[in-house]
Order: sequence, then C-alpha cells, then structure tokens
Amino acid sequence: MEFDLIHRYFTQPFSGLLGEHIQTVPVGIGDDCAVLQLPPKHRLYVSTDTLVAGVHFFDDEDPVLVGWKALACNLSDLAASGADPLGFTLCLSLPSINHDWLNAFSQGLLACAQHHRCPLVGGDTTGAGVNLQATITLSVMGCAPEAHTGFHRGNALPGDAVWVSGLPGLARLGLLFEFQVRGLLKQALRSEQLEPTLHVLAQVPEGLKDQARQALTRPQPRLELAKALRGVARAALDLSDGLSGDLAHVATSSGVQLQIHHQAIERLWIQAWPDLVHHSDKDSLLRVLSDISYTGGDDFELCWTANALHMKQHLASNLLHTSHQIGQVVEGRGVMVQAADDTLLPMQAHSFNHFHDGGHP
Amino acid sequence: MEFDLIHRYFTQPFSGLLGEHIQTVPVGIGDDCAVLQLPPKHRLYVSTDTLVAGVHFFDDEDPVLVGWKALACNLSDLAASGADPLGFTLCLSLPSINHDWLNAFSQGLLACAQHHRCPLVGGDTTGAGVNLQATITLSVMGCAPEAHTGFHRGNALPGDAVWVSGLPGLARLGLLFEFQVRGLLKQALRSEQLEPTLHVLAQVPEGLKDQARQALTRPQPRLELAKALRGVARAALDLSDGLSGDLAHVATSSGVQLQIHHQAIERLWIQAWPDLVHHSDKDSLLRVLSDISYTGGDDFELCWTANALHMKQHLASNLLHTSHQIGQVVEGRGVMVQAADDTLLPMQAHSFNHFHDGGHP
Repeated sequence: MEFDLIHRYFTQPFSGLLGEHIQTVPVGIGDDCAVLQLPPKHRLYVSTDTLVAGVHFFDDEDPVLVGWKALACNLSDLAASGADPLGFTLCLSLPSINHDWLNAFSQGLLACAQHHRCPLVGGDTTGAGVNLQATITLSVMGCAPEAHTGFHRGNALPGDAVWVSGLPGLARLGLLFEFQVRGLLKQALRSEQLEPTLHVLAQVPEGLKDQARQALTRPQPRLELAKALRGVARAALDLSDGLSGDLAHVATSSGVQLQIHHQAIERLWIQAWPDLVHHSDKDSLLRVLSDISYTGGDDFELCWTANALHMKQHLASNLLHTSHQIGQVVEGRGVMVQAADDTLLPMQAHSFNHFHDGGHP
Repeated sequence: MEFDLIHRYFTQPFSGLLGEHIQTVPVGIGDDCAVLQLPPKHRLYVSTDTLVAGVHFFDDEDPVLVGWKALACNLSDLAASGADPLGFTLCLSLPSINHDWLNAFSQGLLACAQHHRCPLVGGDTTGAGVNLQATITLSVMGCAPEAHTGFHRGNALPGDAVWVSGLPGLARLGLLFEFQVRGLLKQALRSEQLEPTLHVLAQVPEGLKDQARQALTRPQPRLELAKALRGVARAALDLSDGLSGDLAHVATSSGVQLQIHHQAIERLWIQAWPDLVHHSDKDSLLRVLSDISYTGGDDFELCWTANALHMKQHLASNLLHTSHQIGQVVEGRGVMVQAADDTLLPMQAHSFNHFHDGGHP
C-alpha cells in the first residue's frame, strides 16, 4: 500500500520533472538515498519546515493550495539565503488515506515544483497512529557558488539601507479576510484591535483583497530576485515572522539597530490602494495597515540590507522597480520605527510563536 | 518559546559537534538555511524518515533510545548507499513541551550524532495542534565520490553472491521480547504463530536476548562497512523491511532471482546460540528463528550482492569476518529459499506495511 501510494501520487506525477533534472539528480525516489550532483565549486543549502493541519493551515483548506504552499515556504528559505533550488524531499504522516486529498495536494506541490524547477527526490509516507491531523515535513536542497556570502543575518552593517520586495503584511491581510469568512476574527485579535480591523476589512477595495488572498494562498518565493541580489545584499531573510520578528533577528545577529521609516510603509499601502489618500479615515486606516506590516507574518517577500548605491548599480531595473527602501541600519541595538517627525519608538515585538497562539486558531 | 526550546535542547548541546565540523558545515542552526560544503568531486546523498510515537516506537519508550534510533535509522540509509555522513536536520511536532522528554531525546540524538560524526545543522519545532502524539522527521545528508556507483537496488548481477552483516532478524527477536513484556504478543502474531514463538522466547539464552534487545533499541548503522564496500558491492540495502521485503526490491529492480540458502540462515542462528544444536527441539526452534529472519524488519544490518572473490580480495579481515554469504543471484525473478535438499520455494512476501498493521501495535 505504501509503495503504491507513493508511486501513484508522487513518483509518477513527478517523473517528468525528475527526468528533466537527470544531471543534477542522478538517483531520485525509490532507493535508500536520493543522489544529487552539485555544480563544481558550489555549496549545499538546506532548509526544512513542518506543517500540521489545523495549526499551519486550516484542516479543510484546499489541498492544492496546501501542496503549493508547503513547497513555496521552503523555497522562500532558499531565496532568503540566495540559493538556487536543486530538489526536495517530502514526509507525510496521514491519519487516513484520502485519495481526493492526496491527488489535489500532489497537484499543488507539482505546480510549485514545476514553476520553480525543483524536483521531488525522495520521502517517506507513514500512518499517523492516533493522531487525527496530517503532518507534512519538507526539506529543500539548493546551491550557490562558494563565493556567495549566504545573506547571513549577522552581515548587516551601519550605513546599509533596509529593503523589501512587495508589500509586507499583505499575506496577513489575506489571513484576516480568511478569519472573517470563518468567524474567527474575535479569537485571532485582541479585543481593542477588533473594531478598527473590521473597519479596514470593510474598506479594502476588491483588487487589493484579491492580491492579499493570493499572497496568503499562492505565495511566490522570490528566487529570481534572490539570485540577482548575490553580491549586492548583505543580510537577508523572508518575512515569514513579520517585519518586527524578522528584523529583530537581523539586529541581534548583526549587533546593529534597524530604523524603519513609518512613512515608507504607509507609502507602500497607498501605492497598493491609491484611493486611500482621499479617504476621510485615512489616518486610522493607515495605522491598522502599518501595524499589520509590523506584526503580520506569512509573507514570502524578502527583506534585506544593502548599500543603496550598489542596489542601483547592480540590480536589473525590473527587480529594482519592485524593491522598496523602507529604512536604514545604524549603530545601536533593536528595531525602531521612525515617525514623520523623526521621533524613534521601538517596534513592538509580536513575533509569531507556535506554542503560544498555535498559528491559525 | 520556540527559539528558547531549540536553543536549550538542540543548538547548545550540539554546538561542540558542529564546531568540529566548521569546514563541512560553515552555517548551522539559526539562519534561513544551513550551508554544507561537500568535498570536491563528491555527490550528495539524502534520506529522510518520519517516526510517529505509538506507531514507530512505543509512546512510553525511553526517549534516549528514541533519539538514538531516529538518527541511526537515517544513517543506516546512508550506509545502504555507501555514503559518509555530513549532517542532519530535525523536525519535531510536539503535543506539549515535556522538558524531561526533550532533554533525554536530545541526549540520545547527540550520542548517536557524536558516535557517527554527524552534526545537527537545522530544523523546525512546532506544536501539534489536536494531535496527541509526537511526530519526528529527520533528513540526513551524506556524500560519496562521484565514481561511487551508489549500491543501487538495480545493480545486482547473476553470479553475485548475497551477503549480510550480522544476523538478520535479531532486532525482530528483540521486538518480540518487548511485545511479550507488554502483553502484546497475541496482537502482533497470527494465532498459529503464538505458541511456537512463545516456546522460542522461553528458550533463548540470556546473552542472545541482550543482543536482540540491543539490536532493537541501540542499532548501529554500518557506515564503516559501507565505506569499505565501495567498489566491491553492487546492490546494497539495509534490512529495515526484513529479508523478504528488502530482497524483493533488489530482485525486481535488477530483474534477477535471489536464492537464499536456508542452511546459511540456520548457521547464523546457531553461531549466535551454539547450544541450540544440542536442543531436543532444534528443528522447530530453527524454523521459527528462520521465519523471523525472513519476515522481521527493523534490522540495521546491510545486505548486498558482490562477487565472492572480490569480497575476499578487497575487504579487510575484520569486516569480512562479520560478513556472511547467505545466497546467490541467478537469472530469473523473485526471492527463493533453497532448502538443504536443493528444493526451491518462494520466500513469502511479508513486507512491513505501515497502513495495514500500523507498525508497533
């Protein structure tokens, strides 16, 4: 049964993609080990993540999207390190065999794997015993030239600018809409946040709502951007824990202070929602939206520090166009928000904590 | 909390081992990706396994042994491919935070990692939502020279001899003792097996009983042997599914027949239990023990095909001494048992199936 399952949903659907990668994956699924061939003078990059149904995704979530996202979140870690994908392994622990679920999950996984040229090379499928929910663990392997610094969190230097791709908080906005549909907003928010958040959700235009849902359910790891940033970015990471949580890692590891320009974050929201500037409630809407940027995780956009001149000299204009300078690195400690009047206040630490709030409610 | 847990039980205890491997693991736990440096002209070998409490180990099992075995079973897959360990990742999904369990699990894991020079390079720790049992996924990475054939299952050739290290079935004998202690034998065996098995368990001498328990709880992946077999063995695997199940993979992949000499298996049991030859019940005891060899999994010993002359010419005497020829590869299909009178009968297929019997009962 186990062999049959693996063959039907993983070996067979992924065989074409694996076949295209015979040079880099001479042995794929089915032997004791997969064998991968790195290009000469390249290093291996590895990242791994576990997703539990009901914790990291809704247990009734579309399995096509679960499959896509399971791989995308690991690929985003490769992007955050500036590595190119080589292949991934998949471990599934399943309470029962639901063929519809497996088929859809496999399709979503394959779509992401094909899009990012990352073949499935091995894995394990087991029963879940008394566990009632599926547990999904992916490990992704990638490579980058030996000369690449790896964008380590401790590399930021005073004088660097802080950059992001896309709009930090967009995926969290998507999650808030999802909570609303499911009647879970009250559980997910502190009581004082509820009313202002409901007000924002009621005002967001349809186009931005769609983008927010896409960012949540069909995130795109920024692998192309990451490759272009080699030799340009110093420290980088993806925004899976939100600006506040992730920038704190950089500040601590690098022994620097990061100052985020509040107006730059507001400008990103206005760029995505131009009519916002004419809104009578503009200030209170922007307050909630900025807060979502600071505290909301689940984003697969990159955040990095780099010299502003280097960025302009080395980055292709299409990538530069979607990169936004949101702050600066200075001597000091911690993550601060710089208001329009130049006052500095600490960005509150609301880093996502699995054991406190258990992820999705 | 998550960061604290990881630091306390994984980053800190493993930091010494990681420090000794700074050349091969320039970046370990704590960044988006771990970075590994393979030796020039080597390929990457990857294997991954999931263990669920109550399915793959008893939920009250000593967590030191769970930690050891979790890594050992992945290292055994590297051994089965002839690769040297580079490092491993660990994903834990835990229903609650039990510091005693984590501390003991971490100790067992570290002991195996130190023994086999395989540092922990990254991972993920999450809550388990409504799941009541821990799920543990390890991915192990290793390397071997590009010229190494990888011991693939499809490499066996007619004329090869079939070899094993150690005594196939020893770990399953240990599991039967464990089932007996827990009053689970009746559940684990078919009714007609119960009485003969109880008889064997009552007769096994104390020394062999200890060895069987060791093979089950503290298995040793055969990495040294595997390295020595490069250029000598053709197809190889570890006996995690038992002789019957694992040899069937080789026969199918290689398009050959494997003939196992029943007397060779009996000789291995007599070597481990010399007084058996004087036993009045010798024949019926050996029948049960051989059956355990054929159908019992959980062994971390290697099984491989190789030219007998090559083995004698190339293998160091200490390794040759613990390697036993148990059969031969011929033209044909399937796995057969050759009796003392040369009659051939198919080895029944009893491959371990997670969804049918759920592993441990």
